[in-house]
Amino acid sequence: MRCQKCKGTASVEVRRHHAAFCNDHFVEFFDRQVERAIEGEGMFTREDRVLVVVSGGKDSLALWDVLLRLGYRTSGLYINLGIGEYSQASQRKAEAYATGRAADLLIADIPLEFGMGVEAFARATGRASCSACGLSKRYLFNKVALDRGFAVVATGHNLDDEAAVLLGNVLHWQTEYLARQAPVLPSTHPALVKKVKPLYRIAEREAAAYAIIRGIDYIVEECPNSVGAKSLLYKEALNLLEQAAPGTKQSLYWGFLDRGRALVGALDDHELRGCRYCGQATTAEVCAFCRMTERAAERMRVRRAAAERPASDAADAGPEAGQHAVSGRSAASTR
Amino acid sequence: MRCQKCKGTASVEVRRHHAAFCNDHFVEFFDRQVERAIEGEGMFTREDRVLVVVSGGKDSLALWDVLLRLGYRTSGLYINLGIGEYSQASQRKAEAYATGRAADLLIADIPLEFGMGVEAFARATGRASCSACGLSKRYLFNKVALDRGFAVVATGHNLDDEAAVLLGNVLHWQTEYLARQAPVLPSTHPALVKKVKPLYRIAEREAAAYAIIRGIDYIVEECPNSVGAKSLLYKEALNLLEQAAPGTKQSLYWGFLDRGRALVGALDDHELRGCRYCGQATTAEVCAFCRMTERAAERMRVRRAAAERPASDAADAGPEAGQHAVSGRSAASTR
Repeated sequence: MRCQKCKGTASVEVRRHHAAFCNDHFVEFFDRQVERAIEGEGMFTREDRVLVVVSGGKDSLALWDVLLRLGYRTSGLYINLGIGEYSQASQRKAEAYATGRAADLLIADIPLEFGMGVEAFARATGRASCSACGLSKRYLFNKVALDRGFAVVATGHNLDDEAAVLLGNVLHWQTEYLARQAPVLPSTHPALVKKVKPLYRIAEREAAAYAIIRGIDYIVEECPNSVGAKSLLYKEALNLLEQAAPGTKQSLYWGFLDRGRALVGALDDHELRGCRYCGQATTAEVCAFCRMTERAAERMRVRRAAAERPASDAADAGPEAGQHAVSGRSAASTR
Repeated sequence: MRCQKCKGTASVEVRRHHAAFCNDHFVEFFDRQVERAIEGEGMFTREDRVLVVVSGGKDSLALWDVLLRLGYRTSGLYINLGIGEYSQASQRKAEAYATGRAADLLIADIPLEFGMGVEAFARATGRASCSACGLSKRYLFNKVALDRGFAVVATGHNLDDEAAVLLGNVLHWQTEYLARQAPVLPSTHPALVKKVKPLYRIAEREAAAYAIIRGIDYIVEECPNSVGAKSLLYKEALNLLEQAAPGTKQSLYWGFLDRGRALVGALDDHELRGCRYCGQATTAEVCAFCRMTERAAERMRVRRAAAERPASDAADAGPEAGQHAVSGRSAASTR
């Protein structure tokens, strides 16, 4: 297999483009795809301050790396979700990357701020782990970006991620979610920062190849809570199709952007207003994150109170008891 | 596993309905699903004459069987596509079923009428086999229904078939095809007979279970030309998803009917007119079937002429030589 640019030995095949590249020309290809995404979709300019959400995994570190190399003004944001050793190991990868590149890394620490991690949020509210985690991440990166004046938040979602979400939305014809699926979500409220996905033209295995070629040390393990996640199932089905017909994922997602999205119609952002507690954009009086953390904090207080009371009283205290305001709804700490 | 109706031993599990049935109650379930399809979608009444296209496979024979049992006025139509021994074996199954039930079976014989089968049509026109075959079947069942005054044509497409086609259309966002995907395609031109799919609520394995329970002897083999067909790949991907989440296929297809179809908009049947040769509905001057058969006949004549000429002349005759009108475009023979 030969590099289609220099005819040297190819190291990465990109079957859906009928192409193969040596290391250097693969990085060039990668850069070009990311630039096309950023410029073609009007994501941000070289003047904008971009907050890159990094998880310690290959996609987000590859994203940060390519943006740094291409000369964009970025800071990284690592969100400690409090998922035991997994979160600690991920944080070490993000920190090591930032230190190695002398890049600016912010840390938002959920256990430190809220006294518990996203798994406790999930338990307290009956949400699935991935749902509580996603809600927390979206809340926090938006908050940090707002507080620190970033123009835009960039996440490392790649083509495989977007195609899997799209497949799930189509399998259930969730038209409202379909309307929200785009590489750029503009700011539709003063408290809602623009969100972009510069890797939407990059397949998962290409992000991994880029990270390896660029010597990025990333966390290889999947989140322990992702076992059995629907997104992994959808990726498996898409990989089966991609294997037989390279380009299927691209056709699904890019075709949606070209033709399907027009069918779904414009994003309907109802009537967004500021959350009564935190001011972030919400359609309700109190935003979903504040409702979740309030409920989790309440449950923890009830438990503590039960533990401190004599045994005979403890049985009366259900999770619904008590109506205290939540503390710790302040900004995520950053270093 | 117990039958949810009579608590006897269940023989068929229908996981997507969280149900299991004994033989008798499974047939009752099957009947109810088919009746709901027919009545709910306004497919036909007990007064209408229905032409059931039977291939000799489980789905179409199960369809004919349930319609006969439920008291609808049906005739079967077997189309001999000329696919060697496979077509002969299929025809024997269809004929044996009709004979056993003293049911009326019509036969359309493509090799007899056109001097060649659908594989030769495909070769002559550069179409894929399945494309030439599908075009021929749609043409012929419509023609037979028109010529013999049937109100409607019913095909044995089941939930798995429809979900697989839908997945393919979504993977490529073929919005025009999406607009045509429905359990009922009304007549939008005097030469276009209404088409219906009464098994669209029945999974493939349920059609097989029905055929077995009802003692229907059907051809088990897939068409030899279907090897590597995209539809089988899409079914494999959907089976993977269904296995992990029973109800996925139903959710995909029924969700499309409920919500997705509205997005795609109404079927745009351009300006249909009668084909100059055969009178069937087409958007062009000559319909796709006549163009295909004309080209195939021409190619055969050129080959025959080349074989009859001295060797020195033969090299001049390309497939484009000669402009003769096609013969054998008359009605399919019926017995």
